[in-house]
Amino acid sequence: MHIPLDRHSVIPLYLQIEETLRCAILDGSLKEGDKLPSTRMLAAELAVSRLTVENAYGELAAKGFLQARRGSGAYVCHPYAPPAPPAAEQTALFPVDPFTTGASRLDGQADSPLPPDVINFAAGVGNPRIFPQEAFRKVMHSVLRRHAEEAFHYGDYCGYYPLRDTLARILSLQGIPARPEQILITNGSQQALSLVSHTLLRPGDTVLVEEPTYAEALTLFELQGVRTVPIPCDADGLCVDALPALLAAHRPALIYTIPNFHNPTGRCLSEPRRRQLVKLAEAAGVTLLEDDFVGDLRYQGAALPSLRSLAAGGGVIYVGTFSKMLMPSIRIGYLVADAALYPRLAQRKHLDSFTTSSLLQRSLDAFVTVGSYQRQLQRACRLYRQLRDVAADALARHLPPGCRVELPEGGLFLWVQLPPDIPVSRLMPLAWQQNVTFARGACFYRNNPQAEFTLRLNFSAQTPERTVIGIERLARAMTLCRAQTAERATLINPE
Amino acid sequence: MHIPLDRHSVIPLYLQIEETLRCAILDGSLKEGDKLPSTRMLAAELAVSRLTVENAYGELAAKGFLQARRGSGAYVCHPYAPPAPPAAEQTALFPVDPFTTGASRLDGQADSPLPPDVINFAAGVGNPRIFPQEAFRKVMHSVLRRHAEEAFHYGDYCGYYPLRDTLARILSLQGIPARPEQILITNGSQQALSLVSHTLLRPGDTVLVEEPTYAEALTLFELQGVRTVPIPCDADGLCVDALPALLAAHRPALIYTIPNFHNPTGRCLSEPRRRQLVKLAEAAGVTLLEDDFVGDLRYQGAALPSLRSLAAGGGVIYVGTFSKMLMPSIRIGYLVADAALYPRLAQRKHLDSFTTSSLLQRSLDAFVTVGSYQRQLQRACRLYRQLRDVAADALARHLPPGCRVELPEGGLFLWVQLPPDIPVSRLMPLAWQQNVTFARGACFYRNNPQAEFTLRLNFSAQTPERTVIGIERLARAMTLCRAQTAERATLINPE
Repeated sequence: MHIPLDRHSVIPLYLQIEETLRCAILDGSLKEGDKLPSTRMLAAELAVSRLTVENAYGELAAKGFLQARRGSGAYVCHPYAPPAPPAAEQTALFPVDPFTTGASRLDGQADSPLPPDVINFAAGVGNPRIFPQEAFRKVMHSVLRRHAEEAFHYGDYCGYYPLRDTLARILSLQGIPARPEQILITNGSQQALSLVSHTLLRPGDTVLVEEPTYAEALTLFELQGVRTVPIPCDADGLCVDALPALLAAHRPALIYTIPNFHNPTGRCLSEPRRRQLVKLAEAAGVTLLEDDFVGDLRYQGAALPSLRSLAAGGGVIYVGTFSKMLMPSIRIGYLVADAALYPRLAQRKHLDSFTTSSLLQRSLDAFVTVGSYQRQLQRACRLYRQLRDVAADALARHLPPGCRVELPEGGLFLWVQLPPDIPVSRLMPLAWQQNVTFARGACFYRNNPQAEFTLRLNFSAQTPERTVIGIERLARAMTLCRAQTAERATLINPE
Repeated sequence: MHIPLDRHSVIPLYLQIEETLRCAILDGSLKEGDKLPSTRMLAAELAVSRLTVENAYGELAAKGFLQARRGSGAYVCHPYAPPAPPAAEQTALFPVDPFTTGASRLDGQADSPLPPDVINFAAGVGNPRIFPQEAFRKVMHSVLRRHAEEAFHYGDYCGYYPLRDTLARILSLQGIPARPEQILITNGSQQALSLVSHTLLRPGDTVLVEEPTYAEALTLFELQGVRTVPIPCDADGLCVDALPALLAAHRPALIYTIPNFHNPTGRCLSEPRRRQLVKLAEAAGVTLLEDDFVGDLRYQGAALPSLRSLAAGGGVIYVGTFSKMLMPSIRIGYLVADAALYPRLAQRKHLDSFTTSSLLQRSLDAFVTVGSYQRQLQRACRLYRQLRDVAADALARHLPPGCRVELPEGGLFLWVQLPPDIPVSRLMPLAWQQNVTFARGACFYRNNPQAEFTLRLNFSAQTPERTVIGIERLARAMTLCRAQTAERATLINPE
C-alpha cells in the first residue's frame, strides 16, 4: 500500500496515515472487510514507529472506519456498507489508548486542523478567526523591544507581579475578591487543575464531580488513582439536594465544579444552589475547586456570584484562563487560593515546570492594561451570541424529532440529547461521512449509558454560514442513523 | 516602622520588605536582639498578606539577619555582632517553608535580580549577558509575521513536529539515537523530570540518586512521597560498585543521574562506570533517568557516550533543555523515551498543561535551523571556559588553606569543599555582609552532615572582573568565619 508521508509537515505522521487510509476507504480502494496490514508490518514499511501506526488505526476506529477483531487484526469497516448484526458491531472496537480516541482527541486534538472540508464542532476553544493575533503580535513586539532582557528571564515563580495585580483588579470588579499574593499564574487552566489535584489529592481519595463534566479533569483524577463520584445534574446545574448523602457516603477530598456555562452542557448553577453548595462544602470541610473557564463569555441574563465570593472561609480555589477566549497557545491561566493552600500550590508549580514564560505574561499584561482584552471580550461576546442564535435556529429547523437542545446563556457549547434510535457511536461515522464532526458525550461521562445519547457542539468555531451547513449535515447524518436503526429492527424482527 | 512598597514593581513585595529590613539592620537602625513586629501586625500595617511578611522574614532568616525564638517572635540577628554561644545559635532558625529558603531560592529564585552590589554565584543558569536576546527577538518577530495563526494555536501535544525532527538530528549527531516520535517537548527540563516522576513513581517507591544531586529533583520526589536513597559519589561520579547492594536492598523504581557536569559538583561519570551503570540497571530492570541539562557545554576533554546510547534495551529516559544555555524563560526542554513509556509520558504532559507554546517552539526551531543555536553554543563555550579558568585561578590564589576546589571539564558549576572551621551556615551571613552569595551545599543533600562544609559556585554568571572581585569577597568572608570559629573556641576553652 502506498502511503505518502511528509515528514516536514505540521500534520503528525499518524494523522497523515489515517487520512490516506480513510480516503482509500471512502473512494472504494479499500473495501468493507479488507484486512489491513499489521501495525508492525506497516510501521516497518513506512519507517515509522509502531505507535504511529497504532495511533492512525485508533483514529480510524474512533471514526468508525476500522474494526479490530481480537487476535485476528484490523479490518476495514465501510460506513456505507450494510450494517452488521448489532451484537458484533457493539463489541471489539480497536483497542487503543483512551488518550488517542477519547477525551483528548475531541476536547483538544480536535483543535488541530482537520481536512478543510470537515466542519468541526468538536473543538474546545473559541473561534480562531477572532483571536487578536495582529494586536497581540504588536504588543509582544513592543515588549521584546523594550524589555527583552526581563522577558527572557525566569521571573517570579508565582507569576509576573503586575499581571497578578491586573488580574486581582479584574476579578475584584467581577465581585471575586483576590489580592495579587493569592493569584498563581499557571500554564493554562489545565495546569491549575493539575496542581490542585497533585497538591490536595492522594491515590485512593475521592472527588465529587458533576456528571457529565470536563473530560480532561476526569482523566487527570483517574490517572492519579483518585476516584470520581458523579453528582447528578439538571438544567440548574448540580443537584445540591444529593450532596449531603454523597458527602456522608464518600467523604470526598474535593468537589470539582464548573458553575458557569458548564463544559459540556453549557448550563449555569443557579444562585440558590451556589449558596447551598458553598454552605454544605464548608460544613463538611471539603475544598471546592471552581473552574470558571469561560465565565466572562455571558451573552444574556445577569452574572451569578462566584463560589469564591460566597465562601467566607476561603475554602474555594478559583481557576480561570485566557486560553479559551483569547488564544489557546498563550497558555496562561491562573488560580486564586488562600494562604492556607497557596504556598503548597506555588511550590508544586515550581517543581512541575518552574515559571510560565515571562514574555507571554508581560505581553498579556500589556494587552489587558491598554484595554485591548476588554475590547476583545466584547467583540467575542457579540460574535458568539450571534453564532449561538444561528446554531440554535438551525438546530430547531433541521434536527429530526426527538432531539433535545438547551440554549446556554454564554460560553462555547450546546449540549444535544439524542433519541434512543440515534446512538452517538453509530451517528459519528455517518457524520464523518457527511463531513461534519462533534464531541461525543462519552468523553464527559464515566460508564453512564446516557452518554451514548449525547453530544457536544462548539457553536463558536465556524462562520454563521458554515454553522448552518454543518448543522444541516449533522441533521442528515441523524436521519440516516435513524433509518439504519429502523432497517436493522426490520432485519431482526421481520414482519 | 516605615517600609515603602512599590506595588507596581517587578520585585515581589516580600523581597521589597526583606530588602528594607536588611538595610535597616546593616545601617544600624535595627539592632541585634531587636524584636520585629509579628507577621500578623506587619501584614496589617502594610496591607499585604501574612504570607508575604512570612516570606520576607524567611529570606532574612536564611541570610542570617533574623532569628526566630519559638513562641516568642522574630529577633534581629546582626552579622557584625559578637557571636552568641554556639548552642543557641544552631537551633531555632525562623521556621519557614523550605520552598522559600531552601533549594528553590538558591537554584532558581536566585536567578531573579538581587541588589546590584551583590555578586551572585548562586544562580542555576548561564550568563544572562550572552543570552541571544536580539537574535531570538528577530526570529520570533519573523515567526509572528509569517505564522501568527499557527503560532497562537495549540498544535501537537507531543511538541511541534519540525522541532522534534530538528532535535532528533542534533541528538543523532551527538551519538544519541532518537526519532522525532520518541521526543516529547516539555516546559523546560523540570517538567520532563516531573512527568517521569508522576508517570513512573507511586508514593512509597524508592529512587536511587547521586549524593549530592539537583535540589529540585530531590524535592520533587519527596513531595510525591517517593523515598530517595543516596548513591555515594567520588570524582568519577556515582560509585557503581555500591549499586548492586543498593539495588538488592531497596528495589528502586528509578535511578536518577546527571552524568555530565553534574549539578552541583560539576563532575562527569567516567566511561567504564557508564557502561557498568547501564548494565546493572538493565539486569535489575530499573529505568534510568539521564538528566543531561548542560551536556553540550564541554570546554575540554572528549565527549562521553550518553547512557541512552549505551542502553540497547531502551531502559533510559534522556532529558535535555534549552533553558540553561539559551534563555531560561524560553521554557523548552524535552525528553526522549521508547514506545513502551512514551505514550504514558505524553498523556501525562497533556493532562498537566496541554501544549508548550507553539510560538516559542516555532521560534526555537527557526533559531536552531538557521545555525544560530550552534553559533551561540560555541560562543557560550568560549566564554564559560574563560570564566571557569578565571574563577579557578582566583580561588587558588585567594581561598584560605583547607578549601578544596575541583576543576570541571564543562557546565556551569564549581564545587567547593570547606574545612571544618568554616561551616557554610556561618559563612553565608558573612558572605552576604561582603556582598557575595552562592548556593549552600545543604540544598543538594538530604540529612548529610557533609553538606555543612560544601557550597556551589556558578562561575558562568559574572564578568571576569566581577568573578575575581566576588571570589575575593568570598575568601574574605571565609577568613572572617575562620576567625570567628577560633574566637569562639577561645571563649569556650579559655587557656
